[in-house]
Amino acid sequence: MIETVMLDGDDTLWHNEPLFAEMTTRFLALLAPYHTAEWIHERLYETEVRNLRHYGYGIKSFVLSMIETAIELTEGRIGGSEINVILEFGKEMLDAPVNLLEHAEDAVAQLAGSYRLMLVTKGDLFDQESKIARSGLADYFDAVEIVAEKSLPVYRAIASRYGMNFETAVMVGDSLKSDILPVAQAGGYAIHVPYGTTWQHEIVHEDEMSGYEFQTATGIREVPALIEELAKA
Amino acid sequence: MIETVMLDGDDTLWHNEPLFAEMTTRFLALLAPYHTAEWIHERLYETEVRNLRHYGYGIKSFVLSMIETAIELTEGRIGGSEINVILEFGKEMLDAPVNLLEHAEDAVAQLAGSYRLMLVTKGDLFDQESKIARSGLADYFDAVEIVAEKSLPVYRAIASRYGMNFETAVMVGDSLKSDILPVAQAGGYAIHVPYGTTWQHEIVHEDEMSGYEFQTATGIREVPALIEELAKA
Repeated sequence: MIETVMLDGDDTLWHNEPLFAEMTTRFLALLAPYHTAEWIHERLYETEVRNLRHYGYGIKSFVLSMIETAIELTEGRIGGSEINVILEFGKEMLDAPVNLLEHAEDAVAQLAGSYRLMLVTKGDLFDQESKIARSGLADYFDAVEIVAEKSLPVYRAIASRYGMNFETAVMVGDSLKSDILPVAQAGGYAIHVPYGTTWQHEIVHEDEMSGYEFQTATGIREVPALIEELAKA
Repeated sequence: MIETVMLDGDDTLWHNEPLFAEMTTRFLALLAPYHTAEWIHERLYETEVRNLRHYGYGIKSFVLSMIETAIELTEGRIGGSEINVILEFGKEMLDAPVNLLEHAEDAVAQLAGSYRLMLVTKGDLFDQESKIARSGLADYFDAVEIVAEKSLPVYRAIASRYGMNFETAVMVGDSLKSDILPVAQAGGYAIHVPYGTTWQHEIVHEDEMSGYEFQTATGIREVPALIEELAKA
């Protein structure tokens, strides 16, 4: 029996990673006079991960880490007008249209008819709320949870808040680390819908997943049928 | 009868505005070679308010607006190392200890014994969660709601989520705009506990408050007794 379906947002219902990838490419081009693309890319990633404890996830955090990397890699020689270009990257990202994945709306509409449907998304509150509103999908959801981190304790807190039982719940998302592993650890069902590209920080080694059961779908379109099967089992 | 007490966090339970004020002072000093303090301060405020629609509230937004203001006011002449100083201001703010207001913990402990107690705080999710954890007050609350904006629809959504009736609810906070006005508009009780300084953007003109009833406490210490009176009424 399945009562509750939890869905991730970024790169599960709407495209997100390509926007970060595009801005990273433009950032590398901006710093091309100073360093090789590979070196800049590595330093940017290091800075982002180091800053997670200060900034958390999201576009504003990414912009602050780009600025920090630019200053560090140019030993302060980078000028105000180049940093302004980075600020503009950020505003462009924040204003970017929300592009739904193909079949996402159909899948969400189908699921909304049969289960309690929850959007569980990680990141910046302001940015996520804005994306949810612009996605046009908000009305399909019975509840929306925007969290700073998708960990086992956070999923347990959500379960307790909504009187949700993991034995009758399934989580659907593209990130093994954030969507699949913690829910499997809690004893819930999980359906992995891989997205083309994954941010390095979200990658989980195969052996970390061993012993945990989850299903894999090649696209969001398959998800309602997979959940129907789970519901019958 | 009072069933639910909602409490604001920033400048109601712990000090917040002085940290922004201190960093603003240091920012004005950093740009002193370029402009007068008054001029910089005005431009910074304009930039912050203009950026609210992109960034929302919080420290990361403030840092991004300081950087933008610095670039604009120096016509791009500001250097990377000065901008790095601004980034460091931000990290210092994010790491700053959470200083409770005097009597805040006593008041919270007293209220927790008698009512459903909710923390309703506005701002950056990651930053607010971190402050709540470090405040040592988290365990007193039955629920914590971190929201991007404290508006009438947001309070209504909270009420619906928790089955809260405004006729048996009271909100306590320092901001007339965010804590008092929308709750009074919803028909709830509100207790204003003014803080020494208020960010310009949170200031409400007296005539906007006319027709709405609310109480004023000179400190958080008085709040439990005021609510007890309300509960008896």
